Amino acid sequence: MPSYTAPTKDAAFILHELLKVQDAQIPGFEELSADFTSAVLEEASKIATNLLQPLNAVGDHDGCTFENGVVRTPKGFKEAFEEYRAGGWNGLDLDPEYGGQGMPYTLATAVGESFSGANMAFVMYGGLTHGAYSAIHAHGTDDQKSKWLPKMADLEWTGTMNLTEPHCGTDLGLMRTKAEPQGDGSYKISGQKIFISAGDHDLSDNVIHLVLAKIPGGPEGIKGVSLFIVPKFMVDDEGNIGERNGVSVGNIEEKMGIHGNATCVMNYDDATGYLLGEENKGMRAMFTMMNEARLGVALQGLSQSEAAYQNAVIYAKDRLQGRDVTGVKNPNGPADPLIVHPDIRRMLMNMKSFNEGARAFMMWGAMMLDKAHHNDDKDALGLISLLTPVLKGFLTDVGFDMTVQAQQVYGGHGYIEEWGMSQFARDARIAMIYEGANGVQALDLVGRKMAQDGGKHVMAYFDMIKTFISENKDNEELADFLNPLKDASKDLQEVMMYFMQNGMKDPNSALAGSTDALHLFGHVSLGLMWAQMAKAALAGMASGEGDQDFYKNKITTGKYYMDRVLPAVKMHKARAMAGAETMMALDADHF
Amino acid sequence: MPSYTAPTKDAAFILHELLKVQDAQIPGFEELSADFTSAVLEEASKIATNLLQPLNAVGDHDGCTFENGVVRTPKGFKEAFEEYRAGGWNGLDLDPEYGGQGMPYTLATAVGESFSGANMAFVMYGGLTHGAYSAIHAHGTDDQKSKWLPKMADLEWTGTMNLTEPHCGTDLGLMRTKAEPQGDGSYKISGQKIFISAGDHDLSDNVIHLVLAKIPGGPEGIKGVSLFIVPKFMVDDEGNIGERNGVSVGNIEEKMGIHGNATCVMNYDDATGYLLGEENKGMRAMFTMMNEARLGVALQGLSQSEAAYQNAVIYAKDRLQGRDVTGVKNPNGPADPLIVHPDIRRMLMNMKSFNEGARAFMMWGAMMLDKAHHNDDKDALGLISLLTPVLKGFLTDVGFDMTVQAQQVYGGHGYIEEWGMSQFARDARIAMIYEGANGVQALDLVGRKMAQDGGKHVMAYFDMIKTFISENKDNEELADFLNPLKDASKDLQEVMMYFMQNGMKDPNSALAGSTDALHLFGHVSLGLMWAQMAKAALAGMASGEGDQDFYKNKITTGKYYMDRVLPAVKMHKARAMAGAETMMALDADHF
Repeated sequence: MPSYTAPTKDAAFILHELLKVQDAQIPGFEELSADFTSAVLEEASKIATNLLQPLNAVGDHDGCTFENGVVRTPKGFKEAFEEYRAGGWNGLDLDPEYGGQGMPYTLATAVGESFSGANMAFVMYGGLTHGAYSAIHAHGTDDQKSKWLPKMADLEWTGTMNLTEPHCGTDLGLMRTKAEPQGDGSYKISGQKIFISAGDHDLSDNVIHLVLAKIPGGPEGIKGVSLFIVPKFMVDDEGNIGERNGVSVGNIEEKMGIHGNATCVMNYDDATGYLLGEENKGMRAMFTMMNEARLGVALQGLSQSEAAYQNAVIYAKDRLQGRDVTGVKNPNGPADPLIVHPDIRRMLMNMKSFNEGARAFMMWGAMMLDKAHHNDDKDALGLISLLTPVLKGFLTDVGFDMTVQAQQVYGGHGYIEEWGMSQFARDARIAMIYEGANGVQALDLVGRKMAQDGGKHVMAYFDMIKTFISENKDNEELADFLNPLKDASKDLQEVMMYFMQNGMKDPNSALAGSTDALHLFGHVSLGLMWAQMAKAALAGMASGEGDQDFYKNKITTGKYYMDRVLPAVKMHKARAMAGAETMMALDADHF
Repeated sequence: MPSYTAPTKDAAFILHELLKVQDAQIPGFEELSADFTSAVLEEASKIATNLLQPLNAVGDHDGCTFENGVVRTPKGFKEAFEEYRAGGWNGLDLDPEYGGQGMPYTLATAVGESFSGANMAFVMYGGLTHGAYSAIHAHGTDDQKSKWLPKMADLEWTGTMNLTEPHCGTDLGLMRTKAEPQGDGSYKISGQKIFISAGDHDLSDNVIHLVLAKIPGGPEGIKGVSLFIVPKFMVDDEGNIGERNGVSVGNIEEKMGIHGNATCVMNYDDATGYLLGEENKGMRAMFTMMNEARLGVALQGLSQSEAAYQNAVIYAKDRLQGRDVTGVKNPNGPADPLIVHPDIRRMLMNMKSFNEGARAFMMWGAMMLDKAHHNDDKDALGLISLLTPVLKGFLTDVGFDMTVQAQQVYGGHGYIEEWGMSQFARDARIAMIYEGANGVQALDLVGRKMAQDGGKHVMAYFDMIKTFISENKDNEELADFLNPLKDASKDLQEVMMYFMQNGMKDPNSALAGSTDALHLFGHVSLGLMWAQMAKAALAGMASGEGDQDFYKNKITTGKYYMDRVLPAVKMHKARAMAGAETMMALDADHF
């Protein structure tokens, strides 16, 4: 059975030595003393290890059930959810005015990784609620906020997002769900939505669905889509739960993974809904939720990779098999542990160097969002907007690949469900698909974000790298980081130039390289994080204080990334610059 | 529900226009006229599509059961197995003297891909039997061959291979299963074996286990391992089945995939066994089986990739979502089919160009084995011996990745079990692990095969590429193939040089790059196959005969591989030449 330990030490290093949150001059960050964050992280770690992780395999094995219209979560989920609720964890970074605790999103991100690493399917019930809260918070009226948010903040009620229909996922303009105005400010919603995570369950008293639908007579396609609040149970003005609304579960899906989360077919049949935001501006409101959800999904990719890595390490140290070719390491045992073998190390170091780099990237991104929100910093918003598809696509693509490598460390045992390594891969697999499949992230990056505000944010991204390199160019201890970072960012810049020069004539020549571009951004970003972490670790070593081994290992792990992982840019660059010709040449009939 | 069509046209192209089997001057190959092979391939295709494929999802969903010591296969497997048996398919390439049909292994490989693509878990019952047959055929006495082989050739009895024990998989020297000599030529076998594919079931009258065990008093470790024939039911001299032997099933494993195949814990308790080959030379005998099994597993990687690809193509043409950015393609529909989008194309072309290249590589490899066996060609044996770990490791690593890409084409539906795409990924996943995890294949390649016979076979491999390039250097139409092939093979040669120069001082510096070297060999080999196929296709176009579109598309697909896929060599080269330093630097305690 797998185990899980929250990476609190690494998170603390990122918060205080890399991001230096207390000096970041972001309102609220000044409270983030090392003592305070460590208390929060330690408490979250206990919840992760003692409450959530033991239910992870149970959830996978038992799954959710659907009988007589009722969805039930796996045994133990309800009790655990009560405890999780009671701790107020889900509202950590939500608005204190509406039930939240008002902590920075950066801190919530560190905490969120721990929870998701312990039990991804379980945490999604709260995650979806968090997203729905944010959308209502950003676009709702004061009445709506007062009515729905406080009970969502503490998970008395949970939330969902309803976008997909059987015939449309990415292309929401094709949507058929209708919203008929009733003249009293409410609407009657009818239609079918599928793939609704946490769509229904037995964990909360009410489920608040955010539903995209079209008001008849509105504009065609995506421009005629509005967003509605549709509760499972009606709620009166005093906040009391009343009769059942016209929404029911058609079925729950049998999936490859995240069995502990109920993925529902939702049927809306004249269900009462309330407009959220403006008519026909539903996509704008939905994107508040979606951008947050995409970062949450990125975190899932990292969290499953980390959980899988931890178990691979345990197995690699425990399992005796073969001898170190350079000399016996365990002379009193029948064989040496797996970890002596280079190819096992390769997989472990791939995971370790990805996880630590991705964690920094994730938390740096969260800090940009905090800056954007609390300092109204448009540049920070531009950067995180540019990099949201990169975080989502790169961390889930690579995160999944890392769970597969962790499984590989176990050999045959990795394929046996009892050992739990298959679950990490099966659970992580969905993160590449939902909240916009990774191809859609790549399209968002190349087709929209790169050109946003005249390419200003891409320039700012490269400037950030250039500035870091030039500020540290005399630091010889950083040369092993700065040189490859410089080369890799040049490669990425060349690709950007290629897209600009060719994308005008033929947009496909840029789109054909979109996934490669996304991975290039991912690698360069992790390269930058590693260079910055190396600098922070060197500072830690120079100080002579703290855990000196930690700093040394940080640098070693970073060098591995620069040396062994970053060369992927060479492949992606060549692919991205190969254009669309051979990709698009075949007639569809010839596949 | 997925469908499957055997790629008979492509197999025929490889047999007759690429490998030119009838002119290959290998005994038996002269019979392989296009009419004959097409009749065999078409018949196999019907079995694949009509008999095996419809049971693929059933097998996954229902799985095998274990009750009161009895293993049962999924509903429908037994009837289908009877029909499969009756066709004599499993003995296609086996020795006619012992029940086989004596066809070339090359043809059996083409047929085998179809069967495995239709239902991998089902076909494994025959596949293991085929391997056990080969081991008895190569190492058994005449009496043993007469007694066991004919009934195994026609699957009246099936076979297994028993290597792994709970505490040892790769490192078989740690084995504990014992074989006590009884003085009458027989042995009493006691011990536990795990992960025994097709270990027991209800498909055949007897199961013939080949079991590795140690004879007490023999040499320590791997040098004291012998191989035994241990039937489930005793068999008398007339071939009649008698009482149950001391072998029983402890349990069947719950696995990530291949649910239709029973993976058994086998308990041997004073079971009667018969020595196969010489005492303490068990590994040699087992390797006959293992090398064959490795090629069979390589074929599984390809076959799942092909099956997944076919379904991804169907979905990509059918699903309407979004519009072609270069202009609407389906003006009468609400949206264009997915296949218009570059990123969808990218995944389809990745799969298509891999599948066709891998199929050629696989069948070329099979022909090397036929040459080795029928012409006693030591060079051919050397080449296929060198490339067996490459076929196994590369085709299963990439094959799995392709099933994941096929799943991605489906978006959310790819994650829902009902659509069947998850099964391809879950089934394909095991191929990277069993018959020697891919890291062990990489070790075999770098630590053993490359240096075999003084490096002669590596030299022969490069000579083969060089010769092809120089023979065709004036063919301008081939330039898009020969130039990248030349560059890629140079990159691989540099890596070989690096290993030679550094591996002496520190073996880890070569082992650290072993997986990258394996992938380099894989890409260069597929590059060679594509260059040769392009030449064959150009010849087909010059002839003006046959399916001209087929030839044109072959060249287009090949160009995609050279252009877009082959640049992976740049990454693998940089990684392989990065040495072991950063990989091995961390103390085990610091993971």
